[in-house]
Amino acid sequence: MGKRLKNGTMIFENKPNICFGESIVGKKESEGPLGNYFKNVMKNENFNEKTYEKTEKKMISFVINELINDAKMPKKDIDVIIGGDLMNQIISVSFSAREFNSQLLGLYGACSTMCESLILGASLIDSGFVSNAVCVTGTHFGSVERQYRFPLDLGTQRPPSSQWTVTGAGGTLLKNSGGFCKITKGLIGKVIDYGVTDANNMGAAMSPSARDTLVRFFEDTSTTANDYDLIVTGDLGRLGSEILYDLMKEKGYDISSNHFDCGGNIYNEDKSRFQGGSGAGCSASVFNSVILEKIKCGELKKVIFMATGALLSPLSVQQGESIPGISHLVCVEV
Amino acid sequence: MGKRLKNGTMIFENKPNICFGESIVGKKESEGPLGNYFKNVMKNENFNEKTYEKTEKKMISFVINELINDAKMPKKDIDVIIGGDLMNQIISVSFSAREFNSQLLGLYGACSTMCESLILGASLIDSGFVSNAVCVTGTHFGSVERQYRFPLDLGTQRPPSSQWTVTGAGGTLLKNSGGFCKITKGLIGKVIDYGVTDANNMGAAMSPSARDTLVRFFEDTSTTANDYDLIVTGDLGRLGSEILYDLMKEKGYDISSNHFDCGGNIYNEDKSRFQGGSGAGCSASVFNSVILEKIKCGELKKVIFMATGALLSPLSVQQGESIPGISHLVCVEV
Repeated sequence: MGKRLKNGTMIFENKPNICFGESIVGKKESEGPLGNYFKNVMKNENFNEKTYEKTEKKMISFVINELINDAKMPKKDIDVIIGGDLMNQIISVSFSAREFNSQLLGLYGACSTMCESLILGASLIDSGFVSNAVCVTGTHFGSVERQYRFPLDLGTQRPPSSQWTVTGAGGTLLKNSGGFCKITKGLIGKVIDYGVTDANNMGAAMSPSARDTLVRFFEDTSTTANDYDLIVTGDLGRLGSEILYDLMKEKGYDISSNHFDCGGNIYNEDKSRFQGGSGAGCSASVFNSVILEKIKCGELKKVIFMATGALLSPLSVQQGESIPGISHLVCVEV
Repeated sequence: MGKRLKNGTMIFENKPNICFGESIVGKKESEGPLGNYFKNVMKNENFNEKTYEKTEKKMISFVINELINDAKMPKKDIDVIIGGDLMNQIISVSFSAREFNSQLLGLYGACSTMCESLILGASLIDSGFVSNAVCVTGTHFGSVERQYRFPLDLGTQRPPSSQWTVTGAGGTLLKNSGGFCKITKGLIGKVIDYGVTDANNMGAAMSPSARDTLVRFFEDTSTTANDYDLIVTGDLGRLGSEILYDLMKEKGYDISSNHFDCGGNIYNEDKSRFQGGSGAGCSASVFNSVILEKIKCGELKKVIFMATGALLSPLSVQQGESIPGISHLVCVEV
């Protein structure tokens, strides 16, 4: 039987195995500080498709294909695809799954989707309901900007608190054996709202939920930041990371010395990208390349991966709602 | 350890318990043939909110509140809310979950969401990761029409193959003990596409996926329609149900004598509603009132509940994509 700690932390006894991670990114992402870790880079921003939405779907299909090639596994052996994206009605993942004739669990977790899918994949494998799971998500700058803010063609100016949606997709193949590291724990996020209403300040909207999940996890496991080689957050950005440090300090935890934010590190610091990267594809592409690569080569042995999501829609903002956040967490160990 | 059959059917050994079902519907739904089963009916179509979207959120919160009242359970004791809706970025469930300070697993399964949430809730309870789960979804006619087709104010004409989005929400409280019936099996749907491109003919788009899931389930369990008191589908509508009968006959199964489609039965047959009801709230409200009530009073003992979803977005249709379907299934037994 699976074990659940007081604050909700799930202990995976049979330790679902991470066998492969794959990602693909755009040109801009490949030119940033993490560029060398991305082995698959799109030669053009459309991936030879006619629309950004079709590009996004193709990126997700590409990642799934890479994963099953890595595992030398025929399509029909995928037990379940677990994933979602930021498009309305998660069309990217749904239409991608159509190509694989696999079972699909469609998710919506905003930019926290990668961790939501890893938690569910790990729990289904741990309990024996599936023997493998493809956990996947991705975003494209063009499709997401059109979806949440303005079409690119408008050339709208961006405020200094804004982040740049990553063109990238990432996926993890979980199996019940044979991986190079394991998901040992998972913690589902709560919806936390501090009343932020600025859709261009996602870091501020998400950091309270990141604090909530991380503190619940530390309490459940009687650990602190020092017990982990790295605490990886999704896309708080540079400003959001600073806010998280402050919020964690209020609760007596200092995470600043071994914290790494995927969004805050994916781009070179420059004016147009301001606070860094965002989007479900941000943490998905960085986790499935940079982080897993560092685990594989022995540089990291025990990592917290917590993807952070902002739960807004253009319509909720127009109707005067504030922007709640949600942060899901997994603990990965060699 | 959980057990998985060849085609993916999950066997729940610890048999997650259905403790309570709750629903709320609009006036039109209360005037249909199932009206007497709906104990909660909104007095006005706005539920005293300013927008249809806020109404939808309020309906979902209402259902969750009813469930925890039934169970005499404080808010803080909800282990996890599992659900989604048809709004972009599932704002109805996300903003509702904010009120309960509970963990949230956000889903997108189109109109199959109720079954997707029941499968995940059952598997998490069965494996001991949570002790209870609130599975919930809902739709509002006004919000969904605006989202997928046209704002109501346009007064657009509807073709005869169309269905009417149900104003309704439904939720199930699952616990690890103490229910009046149990979820004994679950089967995750595949994305199946027969190339239907008419967004006003959902029944045709969804019935191939319903056939796929049902045949996989019958094969896995070596059963036929006669082994169940009732086979409940989500919102195929009258036309979609006929298509499903034909498709099942091709595979050697006759389900016509003990099949019940929630969408096909929720409204009186008349011109404006054509093929019946649709929407995630359709099967959710009917399952959590009519079906569970009939199980409770002993009229039904072994039921297949399979919610059917059409995976489209307005944008995917505009970009020339066809409409795939997905159907998730649970088996409920006394």
